[in-house]
Amino acid sequence: MIIAYEGGGYQGWQIQADGGVSIQGEIEKALMTVLQEPVSVIGSGRTDAGVHAEGQVAHFITTKPPTLRKLQFSLNSLLPPDIRILRIGEVDPAFHAQYSALSKIYRYRLDFSQVLSPFKRRYVWHLPYLRSTEPMKKAAPLFLGTHDFTSFANEAHRGVAAKDPVRTLLRLDLLEEKEEMALEFEADGFLYKMVRNIVGTLVECALGKREVDDIPALFAAKDRKLAGSAAPPQGLTLVEVHYP
Amino acid sequence: MIIAYEGGGYQGWQIQADGGVSIQGEIEKALMTVLQEPVSVIGSGRTDAGVHAEGQVAHFITTKPPTLRKLQFSLNSLLPPDIRILRIGEVDPAFHAQYSALSKIYRYRLDFSQVLSPFKRRYVWHLPYLRSTEPMKKAAPLFLGTHDFTSFANEAHRGVAAKDPVRTLLRLDLLEEKEEMALEFEADGFLYKMVRNIVGTLVECALGKREVDDIPALFAAKDRKLAGSAAPPQGLTLVEVHYP
Repeated sequence: MIIAYEGGGYQGWQIQADGGVSIQGEIEKALMTVLQEPVSVIGSGRTDAGVHAEGQVAHFITTKPPTLRKLQFSLNSLLPPDIRILRIGEVDPAFHAQYSALSKIYRYRLDFSQVLSPFKRRYVWHLPYLRSTEPMKKAAPLFLGTHDFTSFANEAHRGVAAKDPVRTLLRLDLLEEKEEMALEFEADGFLYKMVRNIVGTLVECALGKREVDDIPALFAAKDRKLAGSAAPPQGLTLVEVHYP
Repeated sequence: MIIAYEGGGYQGWQIQADGGVSIQGEIEKALMTVLQEPVSVIGSGRTDAGVHAEGQVAHFITTKPPTLRKLQFSLNSLLPPDIRILRIGEVDPAFHAQYSALSKIYRYRLDFSQVLSPFKRRYVWHLPYLRSTEPMKKAAPLFLGTHDFTSFANEAHRGVAAKDPVRTLLRLDLLEEKEEMALEFEADGFLYKMVRNIVGTLVECALGKREVDDIPALFAAKDRKLAGSAAPPQGLTLVEVHYP
């Protein structure tokens, strides 16, 4: 399934132990109603509370293969309108939404306008006091390539750090248009809160709170406490997941 | 003041007798807090419950003229984030937001995609079953120019029809892009629900429920019951008000 959702009303992708409303949980509930059997939905990865998706990918296994068109229609009828199944198809049994992924693309949107449009408020980080984006443009290339991203990764939900904190950032484009900037990240994988921590660090450079030249030392220190605060969730969207 | 708002959370522009939440009411409340005197805010016109604005215009009179920049900042701090004062300025005492207006521009958005993006659901009328927009394009020019729009006007809130139902539609552009259409209306004034009733009638033409050729007779009948149902409010936005 390819899934789009507006994350503002959810505790994130993953089913919550405390019963909080999750996207995964809503989809499993709808599948249970349609297929009349319990189904586990495996996503390409978690997205946090408040984070959006244009192209989350998830798979599930069912003993009752239904007509795909009808299944998509039924799921969209049952799901709340802020979660939509954009496409649904059969895949090879070897396909795994998380482990088969080659790369993922995330977009983070900043807005520099003096007064934030009410139509953008759910989708951007509003930074009316940013004077220049030049330090961000200078800093961005330092994140490209293969690095140990420990300094830019929070511990996962249960206080467990990633076993392998090395990731390859394939692309980081800073696209400016009028009073907005979209930062597009493509990597072979992302550590927990990695995009938001990098954006937070880039914004601190632009605000003059941090020197671009100090970034290599940040990587070397492998200490999350030294990098910038995480950027707020509503600016972040999982755009696309690539598979072989 | 030039004001933008997302109308989904409001009973419309105008203060409600039943105490429902209105945009005018929220702005008057904020002005009262800042200016410490009761202030009446006069808009260019009403917008209905659920209708949005990118450029509503309103004026007010105060005995305590504050610094404009500071006033704008204070109002935006007090107002909910779905209402924003985009600009504020001093005007000639002869200026009246409603009576000085030369023309207004409204936009209505239709979406023809099979599955509606969660990011568009607050701003469009979703019509996945529309096969062709050709009848709409054929019908649109019939609305242009000066007409008695009685058949396309609801009675105002208190059961009162407009005294003069003649309006001049200066422009009606149908802008198609991918699976969307934006209908832009410019007129010297609009009767109550006029845009939504015209859009509803155009869509009935596209759905094959009504013949384009019957539209001149609709105008001639001067009977609201004969034209199409009003299109839903969330597709409509007051874009701009023009003054001399």
